[in-house]
Amino acid sequence: MKIGIMGAGQLGRMLGLAGIPLGLTFRFLDPSPNAPASAVGEQIVGEYDDPHVLERFADDLSLITYEFENVPMESACRLQALGKLVLPPPIALETAQDRLIEKQFFRSQGIPTPPFRPVTSYEELREAVRTVGLPAVLKTRRFGYDGKGQVVLQTEAELVPAWEALEGSPLILEGYIPFQRELSLIAVRGLQGELAFYPLVENHHREGILRLTLAPAPNLSQSLQQEAEEYGRRVLTALNYVGVLAIEFFEKEGHLIANEMAPRVHNSGHWSIEGATTSQFENHLRAILGYPLGMTTPRGHSAMINLIGSWPSPETVLAFEGAHLHLYGKPPRPRRKVGHITLTAETIEGRDALVEEIRQQHIVDF
Amino acid sequence: MKIGIMGAGQLGRMLGLAGIPLGLTFRFLDPSPNAPASAVGEQIVGEYDDPHVLERFADDLSLITYEFENVPMESACRLQALGKLVLPPPIALETAQDRLIEKQFFRSQGIPTPPFRPVTSYEELREAVRTVGLPAVLKTRRFGYDGKGQVVLQTEAELVPAWEALEGSPLILEGYIPFQRELSLIAVRGLQGELAFYPLVENHHREGILRLTLAPAPNLSQSLQQEAEEYGRRVLTALNYVGVLAIEFFEKEGHLIANEMAPRVHNSGHWSIEGATTSQFENHLRAILGYPLGMTTPRGHSAMINLIGSWPSPETVLAFEGAHLHLYGKPPRPRRKVGHITLTAETIEGRDALVEEIRQQHIVDF
Repeated sequence: MKIGIMGAGQLGRMLGLAGIPLGLTFRFLDPSPNAPASAVGEQIVGEYDDPHVLERFADDLSLITYEFENVPMESACRLQALGKLVLPPPIALETAQDRLIEKQFFRSQGIPTPPFRPVTSYEELREAVRTVGLPAVLKTRRFGYDGKGQVVLQTEAELVPAWEALEGSPLILEGYIPFQRELSLIAVRGLQGELAFYPLVENHHREGILRLTLAPAPNLSQSLQQEAEEYGRRVLTALNYVGVLAIEFFEKEGHLIANEMAPRVHNSGHWSIEGATTSQFENHLRAILGYPLGMTTPRGHSAMINLIGSWPSPETVLAFEGAHLHLYGKPPRPRRKVGHITLTAETIEGRDALVEEIRQQHIVDF
Repeated sequence: MKIGIMGAGQLGRMLGLAGIPLGLTFRFLDPSPNAPASAVGEQIVGEYDDPHVLERFADDLSLITYEFENVPMESACRLQALGKLVLPPPIALETAQDRLIEKQFFRSQGIPTPPFRPVTSYEELREAVRTVGLPAVLKTRRFGYDGKGQVVLQTEAELVPAWEALEGSPLILEGYIPFQRELSLIAVRGLQGELAFYPLVENHHREGILRLTLAPAPNLSQSLQQEAEEYGRRVLTALNYVGVLAIEFFEKEGHLIANEMAPRVHNSGHWSIEGATTSQFENHLRAILGYPLGMTTPRGHSAMINLIGSWPSPETVLAFEGAHLHLYGKPPRPRRKVGHITLTAETIEGRDALVEEIRQQHIVDF
């Protein structure tokens, strides 16, 4: 069976690597030629919103999914109109693409979020700061990622430059939450509504980019995992979702506050390739194909370290016992995710020792 | 870096799946169009012994390996003459392709084998039976696999039909060993001579085709593993081998008798994809690239069940917790290996229960 995937980046590449053993073949759509996923299937080079391109892409496909959350919802709906099964449901794209709709959606499901206000004028920004307080973060509602399209506001004096930097796009002001740590949940819902959740993982960012994920999250209490799964269940069910979805949380005083979600496989789930019985990539495919979901049980303790901008020599990485290298076949460029390393060990101590060694020997800067 | 692989069957497909995350790309040579490995790289369709095809195949490659043991040694040498690094060394092909040379090689390394005699005439067959005894197996020296090209001899009366079935090819008569079980060793040697060994696994054949591998082998004593590793060390070192090599053994009275070897990744090592820290496929690539070898430590207990001739629906297989499906993208055909299932569990009991369930529910006939 041939699956269509909108986007041919590293997520598509890893979906392909998980799907080929299941006997699947893939066609990817992506505007950048020779994208990472072209190593594991056919790539059509074209724009996501070009109706002719979409028709050519959809041709003999029966099932289409995405690896890229900024696929226009209209394109997804157009593919549906061509008689194709498109999963996850396009409405999830719209909900996740707009930070305002996303936060309103979380609230509608009884899931706590930081305080927020929409901002369309400088006057509204001043008003929003009065309600939400400082520090706060002014963000574009759409198309922000890896720290792009956002400005942190510490003092009133920073309002004007922040406004000047971002005005022109619809904005949202989000109150800053003094959180203890950032966690994320990788959740899966099958075609028959069955659910599966990976253990919460702990994420460390720098310059707005994910650098390190510890899986499972250290000192993870059963009650926190239950809280996450309950929120995950509400989100997946409300969207009638099928596939893998990630929710990023702040942990504050033993509870979770939702930050954002991604209607796709997620960087903070890459550890699951070696670190869980079934990877997030295989489980996404199982879900959209209507296959039984695979076990999400962790295998030992893992750490995922992103390779940003460049990568160390494979020899250096592979010299560490339990290290697995994943390169995405992308030319190096500053701030670009070009690969990741997964470290696996039987115990937390073993895992932490590996992370420390990689750091101390400056194999990767994270 | 682009690696050339002679052969584009399922072994090439799994080498590609292991190599893409390392940033490698692949070109395969195989006479059958749309071979299984074409899903993970470029395929050149052509004969292994066609000099023009070999030139086109070798073009911009720096490193060439094989996934198919019947590559003519002359072709491998021709590729070397084109200035390409060809690993494992072509001499290993010649040694493994001819059952007589193979057994003589084992003996030269002090590794026990069943009694054997070369046979080139009916007279020699009668003479060989007198020396080796009955039962015995008459085999073609070359191109036998999955039970093809061999006839079991129980009584003198069977000599004439056996001779008539196989005459015309150089033959070998091998004495039958009343063994307790069949085991195999997957061994790896790196470019700098470093060695790694997976634990011995237990293999179950039917109609000459591998059906089931239990990994590690049940009741595996340390001394038996040490004996296997010592034999593995001798073989790898004597051939100045680089890459993965498999040796099949009979176990008899707590000792090993070598049956045959394969200078490549091996069906009895497929369990290592999920069942070991590093798979045989990744370790073969690490070895020929001069990268550090990966840990061969098993992760829990695994069983590998071959799918012969046809395959069950993915839904049925994936409903079993800890089951992993590998389909090779081959049209079904009797006696053909079209895929395999790996079952993983924390304990031997858990693994055995899964195997029993698959058998009892007739998911696969093995």
